[in-house]
Amino acid sequence: MTKHARKKFIKKERSEQSAKQLTKAILNGNRKALFKAITLIESNAQHHQERAQEMLQPLLAYAGRSIRIGITGVPGAGKSTFIEAFGKLLCDQGYRVAVLAVDPSSTVNGGSILGDKTRMEELAKHENAFIRPSPSSGTLGGVHKKTRETIIACEAAGFDLIIIETVGIGQSESVVRGMVDFFLMLVLTGAGDELQGMKKGVLELVDAIAVNKADGDNLKLAIKTRREYAQILHLLRPATIGWETKAVTCSSLTGDGIESIWSMIQNFTELGKTSSVFYDRRNAQVSEWLHAMIKDRLELSFYQHEKVGEIRNSIEADVIQGKLTVTKATDQLFRAYQDNKK
Amino acid sequence: MTKHARKKFIKKERSEQSAKQLTKAILNGNRKALFKAITLIESNAQHHQERAQEMLQPLLAYAGRSIRIGITGVPGAGKSTFIEAFGKLLCDQGYRVAVLAVDPSSTVNGGSILGDKTRMEELAKHENAFIRPSPSSGTLGGVHKKTRETIIACEAAGFDLIIIETVGIGQSESVVRGMVDFFLMLVLTGAGDELQGMKKGVLELVDAIAVNKADGDNLKLAIKTRREYAQILHLLRPATIGWETKAVTCSSLTGDGIESIWSMIQNFTELGKTSSVFYDRRNAQVSEWLHAMIKDRLELSFYQHEKVGEIRNSIEADVIQGKLTVTKATDQLFRAYQDNKK
Repeated sequence: MTKHARKKFIKKERSEQSAKQLTKAILNGNRKALFKAITLIESNAQHHQERAQEMLQPLLAYAGRSIRIGITGVPGAGKSTFIEAFGKLLCDQGYRVAVLAVDPSSTVNGGSILGDKTRMEELAKHENAFIRPSPSSGTLGGVHKKTRETIIACEAAGFDLIIIETVGIGQSESVVRGMVDFFLMLVLTGAGDELQGMKKGVLELVDAIAVNKADGDNLKLAIKTRREYAQILHLLRPATIGWETKAVTCSSLTGDGIESIWSMIQNFTELGKTSSVFYDRRNAQVSEWLHAMIKDRLELSFYQHEKVGEIRNSIEADVIQGKLTVTKATDQLFRAYQDNKK
Repeated sequence: MTKHARKKFIKKERSEQSAKQLTKAILNGNRKALFKAITLIESNAQHHQERAQEMLQPLLAYAGRSIRIGITGVPGAGKSTFIEAFGKLLCDQGYRVAVLAVDPSSTVNGGSILGDKTRMEELAKHENAFIRPSPSSGTLGGVHKKTRETIIACEAAGFDLIIIETVGIGQSESVVRGMVDFFLMLVLTGAGDELQGMKKGVLELVDAIAVNKADGDNLKLAIKTRREYAQILHLLRPATIGWETKAVTCSSLTGDGIESIWSMIQNFTELGKTSSVFYDRRNAQVSEWLHAMIKDRLELSFYQHEKVGEIRNSIEADVIQGKLTVTKATDQLFRAYQDNKK
């Protein structure tokens, strides 16, 4: 063995051992190890990604046993206070709760979710809770891939509930729908006004709408808003087969309605497991994840291809100016991609 | 020149000449040539596709001058009778009108649009009208590609308005939105019931909703339905920047409202051309078309790849059973694709 090969061998041994150690520590529920694992999962460095995969592979056998809950709602709808109240209730009952975030971009102004950990101060202190601030960067596709892998790590670490919070600006909802079992939308009173600011189609993605801040002077209006949403939901196709999308009210302040949201989710899960809708969705989600990753990889390899890059702009300009048909343009670009495949 | 090469040369000469002749005939507004051209465009045979591209390339310079109008609505909403009334009005005013269909599959039961040409008998007889029955087969992606090329041929043949009818079963709406300037949805009275059967998100794709069959005993209810739709539209994001989605009533039987739909479309077009929203959308549509075709081609080349095909099913099963991470599965499949690239 040459000196170089020996060094490489030792390095590889160490990293493999380290991935193995990490795997073991996660299975023991070690919180620090889980944090480290997620950092590894989120890293874009090639050798980190390789280690993350080494670590995740044996964890797969222990994953999948949680209930995955997505929480969305426009900024200001009270997502953090709701998650705090909801999470605490569950932690007090003995459930282990992990809270993750899907942030479609690192440059969202004024809304870097969970970046400010103090927003869920009380929940963060609970021994059964795990809150992962989101130092997310990169594309939505990247975050999506990584959040799914983070879910696996959290489940292997023994968390019973994984709560995934969206930034609520309408870009991440369908991505989150693709990775959760139950999807809850928080709204405020005044359905009409709020709906106008909402991304189209979100109502059809969720399993329940909770009118938040249903307390004090706001209670009457919240009840009215709930009814308005119920009417709109009646016109739409439900997100989950065999489950009528619910509209409820709740208050993170008084705690009213929080417990019944948890009962609703348990009921939803039981029904889905009996009918197998729950498992069918999970399998479909994994298939979609695989095909989405393949698509990403294909497009990356195409658009980053040197020869394609050289001719792409002028070909696209020709197409827009009506000098070249789209089929001919595709042929030319694809020929460049195929001829020089490395 | 060998005998074989000579034969090939002559054959090539002939087919080129034939494509050139076809191009010329289309530019002269020859109806038979246009029919032949569309058959060529729709053919899946490689040599037909090549000839179609030869023919389309010089036509591009003459394309793009029409107004492209999409018409959708659930089966029974009266799309054919509306198109007949609307088309006749325009033809009588001297406009040349082409009617095309986007049929997502050849196996739609009881709704092979325009297959039954008698449905638009009167319009079909008009010298200014061109109706293309849809013998469509193949994937939605394929039809989409071909309809776009058919639009180019029709425009080069001098048609001022291209009307594209969907089958109205919710799969083709977003595809049609990607190829038209103005998108109209026909509905019947009783907004709620009908909306339930509608694919989610369609309301947000259209520029106007026309409550059809607003005549006789039905008129009052139609006016009420129009108001209900107007209220729902108020909650949704409009499909076109700077244009508030309209709700109107019309009757293909009495002709009421048909002319004002045409005025509305002219108004829409003028506004869009002034603000450049019209041209921006067209450019974006061409770019999207190019990238969609590239994606299709990439996925086709991946999933039809021999080595990928050999290992794909077992890898996917491993992923669903939690034996293999999605990232590792993608790596393995992609390696097979890259290593054996032909």
